Order: sequence, then structure tokens, then C-alpha cells
Amino acid sequence: MSIVIIAPTRDCSQWIEQLLKLDESLEIEVYPEVSDPSKVECAVVWLYPHGVLNEYPNLKLICSMGAGVDHILKDPDLPHVPVTRVVSERLAFSMNTYVAMAVLNLHRNYDKYQADQKAKIWDQKTFPEIDVSVGVFGFGYLGRQIGETLKNIGLEVHGFSQTKKEVPGIETYGKDNLDEFLQRINVLVGVLPMTENTRGIFNMKLFEKLKQPTYFINVGRGNQQVEKDILLALDKGLLSGAMLDVFEQEPLPRDSPLWHHPKIKLTPHIAGITNPDAAVPQIFKNYNAMKKGNPLFNEVDKQKGY
Amino acid sequence: MSIVIIAPTRDCSQWIEQLLKLDESLEIEVYPEVSDPSKVECAVVWLYPHGVLNEYPNLKLICSMGAGVDHILKDPDLPHVPVTRVVSERLAFSMNTYVAMAVLNLHRNYDKYQADQKAKIWDQKTFPEIDVSVGVFGFGYLGRQIGETLKNIGLEVHGFSQTKKEVPGIETYGKDNLDEFLQRINVLVGVLPMTENTRGIFNMKLFEKLKQPTYFINVGRGNQQVEKDILLALDKGLLSGAMLDVFEQEPLPRDSPLWHHPKIKLTPHIAGITNPDAAVPQIFKNYNAMKKGNPLFNEVDKQKGY
Repeated sequence: MSIVIIAPTRDCSQWIEQLLKLDESLEIEVYPEVSDPSKVECAVVWLYPHGVLNEYPNLKLICSMGAGVDHILKDPDLPHVPVTRVVSERLAFSMNTYVAMAVLNLHRNYDKYQADQKAKIWDQKTFPEIDVSVGVFGFGYLGRQIGETLKNIGLEVHGFSQTKKEVPGIETYGKDNLDEFLQRINVLVGVLPMTENTRGIFNMKLFEKLKQPTYFINVGRGNQQVEKDILLALDKGLLSGAMLDVFEQEPLPRDSPLWHHPKIKLTPHIAGITNPDAAVPQIFKNYNAMKKGNPLFNEVDKQKGY
Repeated sequence: MSIVIIAPTRDCSQWIEQLLKLDESLEIEVYPEVSDPSKVECAVVWLYPHGVLNEYPNLKLICSMGAGVDHILKDPDLPHVPVTRVVSERLAFSMNTYVAMAVLNLHRNYDKYQADQKAKIWDQKTFPEIDVSVGVFGFGYLGRQIGETLKNIGLEVHGFSQTKKEVPGIETYGKDNLDEFLQRINVLVGVLPMTENTRGIFNMKLFEKLKQPTYFINVGRGNQQVEKDILLALDKGLLSGAMLDVFEQEPLPRDSPLWHHPKIKLTPHIAGITNPDAAVPQIFKNYNAMKKGNPLFNEVDKQKGY
């Protein structure tokens, strides 16, 4: 019985070290150096080469190293075993700080004051705040925490999810009230899981329903946004600007017009941090639950996609 | 019985309009157009010419239009009548958002990612957060709200005030523990009232006691900082950077080296907003209390200076 880690883009040494701290008898190998594939019962994966999980005939559990599982569910050869994800306060904290930073930089007109500093302009006449009414699109575990963080700062927050949630102090909306939600906000924050239903959801059709202009922040998945539509919406004034952490193609190609667009800020998919400190104990817990036949924690519903 | 507004740097029309909404029988005049100085019982002031209050022999109350009263208390000819200040949630909200923005831009290394975007660099290897331990220097009404806002975001917060305050979830320090406070933090936020005791307090002597390097944010008063010491501390690496909203001389002179220092962000004293919506009802309440001989709200202790 062994664990294989398959995460070619990551340095796995910390993960191994921390798993061994929890149980030094664990047998852990890193793909592709697996001595006996038939012993592997648990695969801990991130952006792995599709198909390879079938090399392990006795696989019983697939653990995502992060909150996202779209990279797993789109594997056409995914074995029929349970998939779990990491639900991490660490991840929520980093998402919160990133989104709060983006919203506050807009609200306090940070760009203007940086430009004024460069030009040695002392402007006390312009009102120093821009009113924001933030709409969190995707009001699950992460979206809700982002909403509450912004509400605690004193900002107006609205939350949309397919199934309406009830959260004190935040106006929430369900799938029948999407248009109303889009009309009530002027900052749209995408915090959606990647599923077939959310692919390309941030497109011209949606941008046209927004109150104009709206600022767009995406910390979900790049496949959810149609980048040519973002550029068009910026040109047409439907969007006032955008701060993007995710992209249709990552790394963002060097010839993408997003890099140098004056109304776009971008970061290289670093908004959310899944710290091994937070993830490893959850993976270990599920590994033990699997061995004992107990219920798993944060198991993914493969139909819903999260 | 009348009210005079003396605020040469401000547009007073909104203040008059809102006072008249509360009581249309009020007699309000704007300095220097005062028909009968002997009728003036209340002066509503902001950065007024010192000495002029003695033109009103029956003055009974001086109301600051903001939270700061240093501009009043340093008037050598200040009449012996009570002074009140505005304690405003609106002001606290704007201070909160400004400081949270400054701290989050540091914590999430916003400058680096902006520079990377310009250079089309996709860097996922640098850890995307800088650990912050924020010290709020001045833990009164405003400082405490700033501390609680940062704590609610999930950041580590320490609070210093001459007299130690007790606040759940925040480490607090009093005047006997200043050195300990300065050693526990790596972001120093100045939120002090302007008094004779705080003049020049952010100087080399204090910077040398900090854990190195520390980031400095000042939203208090410019007279509290020694700007040549800030520059020296940046050069020596005692400070990693600074975000300043206040300056020894305002407007900041065009030849100040602060404008173009690569480690300094500056804004033109716009962190805190005192909205007439918040201030006017407080001034009206004190005007009525004065007329009826009732206790005043937020009266300033002229010895303490706040």
C-alpha cells in the first residue's frame, strides 16, 4: 500500500516531508519513479498527465492538492474512484486578501494617486473615494468568506450562487435573480469552480447585463472568461477595468494583448495559496478514512464538478 | 444668537445647507461676512486664521469640522470656551479602507506584480505573500477601528497607546512597553492626534528601535514625522518603504525628495474623509447642548490635546 504524488509543475519535497511527519511509515513515491504500481492505493495530484492514473490498478482514492478539481475531472481516462479536494482556511485567507486589495485599490483610486505622485500633483479637490457595490459571483466556501471580509471592511456586498444562500448583512441571489444581481453591483468578482456550466460564463452577453461601467476581478479559473469579450467590453465602456489572476491559457502567452492593456492589472495565478501545512493533514485524514472504509472529507461530486 | 463658519480652505455651502435642514431658523454666516459679531455664540472652524475668534465677544462654543483639533489648540489667542471635535464613523471607514489598502498592497507584493506585468514576467516561483505584523501606533477611536478591520481580514495586529487598552484578539501595549511593541511588528501605522507630545515622534530614534526592516504608514499628522529621518531610515534599510498621507508641510513642496523616492508612496492628505453628513448632526447636537447648558459631546481636553 503506497501513495504516489503526481504534480510535475510543483516541488513535492515539502509535501513528502510533511506527510512523513504525520506517519513515518507511509510509503510515498513521486511519479514517474514508482517501484511497484500495483501497491499504489492513493494518488495525490496537481495538473497531472491525463491517463496515467490507469497505471495503478489498485487505486482507491485521488486527492487534489488544491481546491480546484477541474484538472482531474476533465481527464477522459479518470478511474472510477472517489476524488477529494482541499478546503483550506489558508486558501480562503489568501483569496480574501487578494480580492480585498483589488477592491480597495479601486475604491481608493490608488492608480490616480500613483499617477498624481509621478506628476507631483497635490489634488485635494477630487473626491478620494469611488463608491463600490461588490458582487461575489460564486458564493460557496471561498466566495462567502470573501463577501464577509468585504462586508466587515464596511463595503456593500452582494452574493450570487445557483442556489441562493442566506448570509446576514449580505444581499444574496439565486439563479432566477441573476439579472437583478448584475444590475445591483459595479464590481464583479468571479470565484467560481471550473465546471462545464461555468466555462466561458464571463462573456459579452453577461457583460451587457451589467450596470455600466463595472470593474471585473477574476480569481476563479481562466476558462470561465472570454478574453476577447473582456477587451471588447473595456473598449465599449461596459467594463471600467479588470484585475485578472487567471487566464484562458496559462502562462499567459507573451503576445496576449492583456499584458499591456492600460485598464487591466494581472497576476500569474497567485491569488489563492494552498499551503502544504493546510493541505497535507486533510490528505492524510482522507488516506486513513479510505484505508478504514470511513466516509471521506470534502469528496467531490463528479456530476456537479465541485 | 448665530453661528459663524470659519473655514477658508473649504466650500461651506453643503455645511450651511445641511445645518438649515436640521433647523431652518438657524442664523449662519461665513467668515468674514458677519453682520453682527456680538450675536455669534458658536464658531464652526477648520484651519481658521488665528486670533479671529476674539472678534466674537459672546462666543460660547468652538466646533472643529473634523476629528483633528490641533489647528485650534495651537491658536495663541484661543478664547476660553469649550472645543468639540467630530467623531465620525465615516472618518473611521475611510481611514480603515486607506490603511487596509496600504497594508494589503504590501502583504500581496502588489508593486512586484505590477512591475512583472510591465516586463511580461509570469513568476509563480516567488512566494506571493509577505508576512505582516501590523502595529497601530495610537489606539484611540480611529486606531482601534483600524486594528479591528485588519484583524478581521486575518492579519496579525498589535496596538500601542499611552494608556494600554484591552481589545480581544489584539495584543496591546502601554507606554512602559513601547520598545516591545516596536520589536513585535514589521508595519508601523501612525494614527496619532496632533499634540505637543507627538510632535516629531516618528524620528530616527524610534526607527532604530524597530525590527528591521519595517514598513511605515502615516495617516495622523505630518508634524509627527521627521521627513529627513524617514529618508535616512530608508537609505539605511531600517525602513523597507513608506506610504504617507500627511507631511511636515502641506501641500508637499514641489522640491521635496519624497515625491520621487522609489520606496515612498504618497497621497495628498485624503486618507480620512469627514463627510458633512456625519459631522453636521454632531455640531448641531452640541450647538443645542450649549444653548441648553447640557453636557457637550466629544469635548476636547485641552491639556491632553484630543
